[in-house]
Amino acid sequence: VNEPETGHGPRAESGREDRDGPIGFAVVGAGRMGAFHAETLARRPGARLLAISDPVEEGARRLLARPELEGVLYERDYQKVLADPEVRAVVVASPGGSHPELIAAAAEAGKHVFSEKPLGYELAAADRALAAVERAGVLFQLGFQRRFDAGFRRARALVADGSLGKIELLRSLTRDPELPFPAAMPPWALFRETLTHDFDVVRWLAGSEAIEVFAMADTLFAPGRREEGQVDTAVVRIRFADGALATVDGSFRAVYGYDVRAEVFGSGGMVTVGDGAPDAARHYTREGIVTPRPRWFLDLFAEAYAAELADFVDRVADGAPPAVTGADGRASLLICLAAIESVQTGRPVRVADVG
Amino acid sequence: VNEPETGHGPRAESGREDRDGPIGFAVVGAGRMGAFHAETLARRPGARLLAISDPVEEGARRLLARPELEGVLYERDYQKVLADPEVRAVVVASPGGSHPELIAAAAEAGKHVFSEKPLGYELAAADRALAAVERAGVLFQLGFQRRFDAGFRRARALVADGSLGKIELLRSLTRDPELPFPAAMPPWALFRETLTHDFDVVRWLAGSEAIEVFAMADTLFAPGRREEGQVDTAVVRIRFADGALATVDGSFRAVYGYDVRAEVFGSGGMVTVGDGAPDAARHYTREGIVTPRPRWFLDLFAEAYAAELADFVDRVADGAPPAVTGADGRASLLICLAAIESVQTGRPVRVADVG
Amino acid sequence: VNEPETGHGPRAESGREDRDGPIGFAVVGAGRMGAFHAETLARRPGARLLAISDPVEEGARRLLARPELEGVLYERDYQKVLADPEVRAVVVASPGGSHPELIAAAAEAGKHVFSEKPLGYELAAADRALAAVERAGVLFQLGFQRRFDAGFRRARALVADGSLGKIELLRSLTRDPELPFPAAMPPWALFRETLTHDFDVVRWLAGSEAIEVFAMADTLFAPGRREEGQVDTAVVRIRFADGALATVDGSFRAVYGYDVRAEVFGSGGMVTVGDGAPDAARHYTREGIVTPRPRWFLDLFAEAYAAELADFVDRVADGAPPAVTGADGRASLLICLAAIESVQTGRPVRVADVG
Amino acid sequence: VNEPETGHGPRAESGREDRDGPIGFAVVGAGRMGAFHAETLARRPGARLLAISDPVEEGARRLLARPELEGVLYERDYQKVLADPEVRAVVVASPGGSHPELIAAAAEAGKHVFSEKPLGYELAAADRALAAVERAGVLFQLGFQRRFDAGFRRARALVADGSLGKIELLRSLTRDPELPFPAAMPPWALFRETLTHDFDVVRWLAGSEAIEVFAMADTLFAPGRREEGQVDTAVVRIRFADGALATVDGSFRAVYGYDVRAEVFGSGGMVTVGDGAPDAARHYTREGIVTPRPRWFLDLFAEAYAAELADFVDRVADGAPPAVTGADGRASLLICLAAIESVQTGRPVRVADVG
Repeated sequence: VNEPETGHGPRAESGREDRDGPIGFAVVGAGRMGAFHAETLARRPGARLLAISDPVEEGARRLLARPELEGVLYERDYQKVLADPEVRAVVVASPGGSHPELIAAAAEAGKHVFSEKPLGYELAAADRALAAVERAGVLFQLGFQRRFDAGFRRARALVADGSLGKIELLRSLTRDPELPFPAAMPPWALFRETLTHDFDVVRWLAGSEAIEVFAMADTLFAPGRREEGQVDTAVVRIRFADGALATVDGSFRAVYGYDVRAEVFGSGGMVTVGDGAPDAARHYTREGIVTPRPRWFLDLFAEAYAAELADFVDRVADGAPPAVTGADGRASLLICLAAIESVQTGRPVRVADVG
Repeated sequence: VNEPETGHGPRAESGREDRDGPIGFAVVGAGRMGAFHAETLARRPGARLLAISDPVEEGARRLLARPELEGVLYERDYQKVLADPEVRAVVVASPGGSHPELIAAAAEAGKHVFSEKPLGYELAAADRALAAVERAGVLFQLGFQRRFDAGFRRARALVADGSLGKIELLRSLTRDPELPFPAAMPPWALFRETLTHDFDVVRWLAGSEAIEVFAMADTLFAPGRREEGQVDTAVVRIRFADGALATVDGSFRAVYGYDVRAEVFGSGGMVTVGDGAPDAARHYTREGIVTPRPRWFLDLFAEAYAAELADFVDRVADGAPPAVTGADGRASLLICLAAIESVQTGRPVRVADVG
Repeated sequence: VNEPETGHGPRAESGREDRDGPIGFAVVGAGRMGAFHAETLARRPGARLLAISDPVEEGARRLLARPELEGVLYERDYQKVLADPEVRAVVVASPGGSHPELIAAAAEAGKHVFSEKPLGYELAAADRALAAVERAGVLFQLGFQRRFDAGFRRARALVADGSLGKIELLRSLTRDPELPFPAAMPPWALFRETLTHDFDVVRWLAGSEAIEVFAMADTLFAPGRREEGQVDTAVVRIRFADGALATVDGSFRAVYGYDVRAEVFGSGGMVTVGDGAPDAARHYTREGIVTPRPRWFLDLFAEAYAAELADFVDRVADGAPPAVTGADGRASLLICLAAIESVQTGRPVRVADVG
Repeated sequence: VNEPETGHGPRAESGREDRDGPIGFAVVGAGRMGAFHAETLARRPGARLLAISDPVEEGARRLLARPELEGVLYERDYQKVLADPEVRAVVVASPGGSHPELIAAAAEAGKHVFSEKPLGYELAAADRALAAVERAGVLFQLGFQRRFDAGFRRARALVADGSLGKIELLRSLTRDPELPFPAAMPPWALFRETLTHDFDVVRWLAGSEAIEVFAMADTLFAPGRREEGQVDTAVVRIRFADGALATVDGSFRAVYGYDVRAEVFGSGGMVTVGDGAPDAARHYTREGIVTPRPRWFLDLFAEAYAAELADFVDRVADGAPPAVTGADGRASLLICLAAIESVQTGRPVRVADVG
């Protein structure tokens, strides 16, 4: 089995960190995910959150007012944060398009980097970031948190131990209850921001590399803007090197709530992940048996988000290779780009032709 | 393991039926269950439905107007039906209180008898019926149809093959969406008509005999009529000879629909039966995930009702012992009577003291 | 909403049948489905099964030995059956490739026709059959039995009453536990015999017509025979006229058992169908909570198979239009043919280009 | 509706705490729950964990070696901890029998007290503790963490908002996969330590007070020791003042894993809590569909345990009344004592007669 999961990413050359005490951290980006990661770091032994940087001071100040973040500094300019020798690792949680620039800058400053997904929107920028990481020899880990979710891990374990046999069909989907991004949504956000998770999941679960992508997409919210990449509904088929076929779908209007599921079918059996029940209560009414709406992503994946960052802290401390590599991020980005081109041309696109 | 399931009931002495052709049947009682059984017989090779008897002619005539019952005769007086030598077997589907008299009369006429539950309301009458069956040497089988339901059978199989180890705790419940019986509901109908199923189920699943019963009951629909036995809510605890403890509950106002479940817990594991979903569709709405209301009993147990009668037809043809015996009916009745006495006295009652 | 469900098929011109008594039926094909339909007819008031025709006498004789088929005649040559004026309706249950010829012959003989799916393997033959039906003015109904399954019907009802809003994404899958057909499996059997159900289901649930198909398929059981159309794994994407996107997948080796599911996602919510549990028992073991394997198709769809034929009998009697039309069969066949061409060319295929 | 949930417990007389900075805490007892609570406090803004006391130094030292507990002091003698004026609140997590003594001592020292369940084993000692709390005017909250679990809270909310109508039947059960306590298990541990949770749950969900208890129990692990109260299997029926009937059962050998469920049935509908699935993955195998074993209590209730202590911290800071009062603990203890007497006498016991 081809095994992207264990693909070796850039490794901390110096081996185990020898400096004493908790690892100094900075978080760049004080939005939803930056706030979550800041709280995780504030509670994590082995890590010490020193600074938060965000060009918008107001939001960052509100975040820093939380009692658990007492003593953490605010810095508008991330370059100043990177110049601080106490900061040994950086969490990049800025808007997706800026990830490559920030990853590169942090690596060049000799910091270990944990970046939120995606690796970037364009291949050239992403490759520049990865090259900077490679040159600096720092640890770089990407935030595909589903790999740390208990259900997804169980699915992956069944693949890895052979229980499912040869993998033949996969499915992954993400449906948001509404447009998940602010007004300034990047073009092709459905692919670049949302389905990048699913592209990573099917590749990780398949244990194989994507070779061909065929995507259909539509713009149901704002008809006529499909050409700008403002699609809100998509179905993507991916063929993998070992013959497995994956279907990914996404939507920005699941009125019943956030919906994340996956399915792996192989010659030895099947595993499904995701059922959406937010808790174990079932309400029996005159109209039927009601399970409440699924949880929104920060609740659904709260444990996974905390676990991925805890894992990163441990790897920095141990000099271990990353759990999710730059190569993983690049592979998901290639599928994205192939999907976009497929929508634009109406034809299947070979991954080799976009990367 | 004590094994009431295979307890030998009265056996057709003549062994395999030697007369040719399908077995002539009559159905006594043209209500809901009589109609269902009549249709099953009309479709069953090996059986030929000859007559239906019911004192209320109108309902019987309506039933007989169904095309599949073409050619079946109506007879007001069941004694005339029993006098017909072509009728070799009788299905008793009259009101519960009349079962013993009809069973006895049919047996005395030399007919094999399949009777709807319960065996009866009072012990003396039930015993007279069983004695008549014994003397006549006819096949007698009782209609505890849950024993023929796929889920209940799987539960019983896990008990019987030892998968659940020593049985320690059991649960069975029946909740009707509304008063299931007509105005002239017999006293203690909740015990005598409804929970008699559950008493049989826990005894069958436990593989042991009840020795002590403690019941609480209340009248929520018509407060003040509890003394008459018009209870609509009850919880019954049963201790079995081998130490297992069962809890049975019942209600006449499950607004969410008909609810039948069971649970068997043993030293080797657990099995649960019943989840109420009427079909495999799940509706995801803004308010949550909705499974429709459970099915009403004739739908939920349609296959079981048909299977129990088909089984009886086969046993008559083969001269085999009954699947559900008079002794099973008597045991369930004893638990009923102990439960009624327990409610009346507020104390645990030994089964041996009522029978 | 475009509404293929209610598309008017050929109608019995004479209106309500005026001849008295049950409708005389013949079944052509004594295999698994022929046997099932024969039993349904034998039990159905309003129908009278007169003859079964099959070139292989032995199997037909075995079937006719069942007691409920007593008196039904065997006829090797189906033309002789069609010449019998007592036979007013024919059930076609022969191998799929012969359906058009048999449908046409029966229609030309003035018989009403219920045919097992598919309508045929090739468009020209299918069209000849439909033309014959049209000319004869007989009732023709196709056996897409999922339309009669309770769960699928509930899903369709939620589409039809607007609960799901505008339909955007659909999914349907069929996975067989093993090769479902005999040695002489027709080429592209996965599409022509199995996924034809799913093509019909997504079209029926979408309430729209397919306009483009893109399919990938592979041969995992017998590598190298893909060119002959002996594929055993496939994923098909279908774009509908109103913009909805459907994904269909199929396999011939679901080791966990027969798997049929569907999902409809719209602007108003979602419905899923199918969970595979064969009964309501759940076994809690040291290794986890176990639900038994799903049922095989004849059990899973037993009620639907009986219901579709009962429906046909009623429509013949009432002179009503068919529930599933020749146009429905043709539409499913077109998707099949487009899918096959898509696999062969590696490109999306417009449905208009194959039909 | 009688509403024990909001019963007013002892209130911090001084109103909102006016001292600045986080509240100094000590944890008494360094076992499993003490360790969990210590970690929660270490991460909780608004709280500062100062000391851990436990007579067994070795375990406490091991706990204190965790990096997140750096700087926390060890003190063998809890009286010294209580003498520290920086310690303003105490978490009691010692063995259950010692709770009353520790609660009283902490209250007398003027500390707010959060105590693990149960309130105690004997009524006199529990009452002495509550009197001390009353005199001291400190905040006292009891650790019935199920009240903070999302599923249980949803159930309670459906009761409280009237969705379930008048509550008629309740069920709660706890089954441990093995003996949960060390060799020196207290007599009647199943009631006093385990089912005390369920007694609280049914009372809380019923919104009424227990008036009569009837319990059966057995000793299946060590036959012959039932007289000593070493029962491992029990079923308890409870009648509430407003007529509702509850059934509680417990076991120390659920081989399929930890099992906690509840059910509330009322005139308006039903809610069930608990299904045991540890994550959202389902494995489809040749043998059936497998859901993994349920989680052990520290995982199942991890969020609830953290939430109850966070709630207590907030209430201390705000001078708010406790979420779970001493009166709640006393009510659960009374049901325990009535259940023990009922097992010993074989008769129903009125709660008023034990308290």
